[in-house]
Amino acid sequence: MKGNAKEAIVRASINLFNVNGFHGTSIRDIAKKAKVNPANIAYYFDNKHGLLEHCFTIFFERYVEEIENGYGFIEQGAAISLKKIVENIMIFQFENTHLTRLILREISLDTQIVREIMSTYLMKERYYINRVIEKGIRAEEFRHTSPDYITLQLKGLLHMPFLNTHYMNEVLHVRPNEKYFVEKYIREIYKWIDGVLCQSEYNKAYVAVN
Amino acid sequence: MKGNAKEAIVRASINLFNVNGFHGTSIRDIAKKAKVNPANIAYYFDNKHGLLEHCFTIFFERYVEEIENGYGFIEQGAAISLKKIVENIMIFQFENTHLTRLILREISLDTQIVREIMSTYLMKERYYINRVIEKGIRAEEFRHTSPDYITLQLKGLLHMPFLNTHYMNEVLHVRPNEKYFVEKYIREIYKWIDGVLCQSEYNKAYVAVN
Repeated sequence: MKGNAKEAIVRASINLFNVNGFHGTSIRDIAKKAKVNPANIAYYFDNKHGLLEHCFTIFFERYVEEIENGYGFIEQGAAISLKKIVENIMIFQFENTHLTRLILREISLDTQIVREIMSTYLMKERYYINRVIEKGIRAEEFRHTSPDYITLQLKGLLHMPFLNTHYMNEVLHVRPNEKYFVEKYIREIYKWIDGVLCQSEYNKAYVAVN
Repeated sequence: MKGNAKEAIVRASINLFNVNGFHGTSIRDIAKKAKVNPANIAYYFDNKHGLLEHCFTIFFERYVEEIENGYGFIEQGAAISLKKIVENIMIFQFENTHLTRLILREISLDTQIVREIMSTYLMKERYYINRVIEKGIRAEEFRHTSPDYITLQLKGLLHMPFLNTHYMNEVLHVRPNEKYFVEKYIREIYKWIDGVLCQSEYNKAYVAVN
């Protein structure tokens, strides 16, 4: 029963932070939506900041795990490993659209929590993606390129649809919460990996001849 | 003198909305920072929502203008036109980093203002980008592809660095407010256009032979 209350609080806060913003949500609102006593929230999370921190942690624990799982394929090649990372993150975000949108919006603010997340989880993310790209370059699978600029573009591609779900629904009429979208969009990012990052067959032939 | 007060109010609100969020900023805070009487703000903008709406309008008026200017190059080819659009938007965002970050964060919320922006400015953006891509496909400059998925990726690439300036500074140690970054990043997006969207020389030759 206690576990359920805690879970209900987290679910309610993700929903309310998302719709009304962190500042626009009170502990009272969360307690009402979660059908718990406000004292329960204080017991588990201290205050609203504690709750937001908890949301960040559950998101990034899983997020980094998905990257690590994709990194596990590195022996099969850098492109395969990077594609696995892309697939894992996309499916994770797809299965957690509300939490994802909340986190992607909040991470753009300059707060104490965000600084801590950056120095831990996002440094790990950078570490793994850099290793994959550097390995790809050494193996001549990938072109010579700056890993940080690739990371930047990759994150732009991965996060855009989940931060901007209203835009997708209202302007593009593409539904980010449909399985069809995720599968198609994963293939689009694969094309980016093949077209921008990989040495093309043409380039490979050119290098071999010269 | 009146013009200066109005401008000072807008500058102060962009700064404060950005740092403390829209909900975390009061009219009092803005008046103090802009060194004006709170009644002045009410006179020009009614209330905080009016101010935010004004920020949206000044951003998107220029944003769509930059797209239209790039679209003006369409007779020289779809890739040239799309690259011009990319260059214009990147430089515009670079010259207005605070305003850009504020808008890119706020646009992810589901509010009345955001819905109005989508049904006007972002529909126009979609219209121009779709026309460029469709023209590129017809002229066999571009591969067969879904314009909406390309728009989605393009926006992800264009906006990522300006929404996530802290991430860039703290994790990647890349400085989005340096001219060097913008020039290099524009070239990276050109590579995406060439590698993902354009028929490569290899493909062209292949098509010609077959």
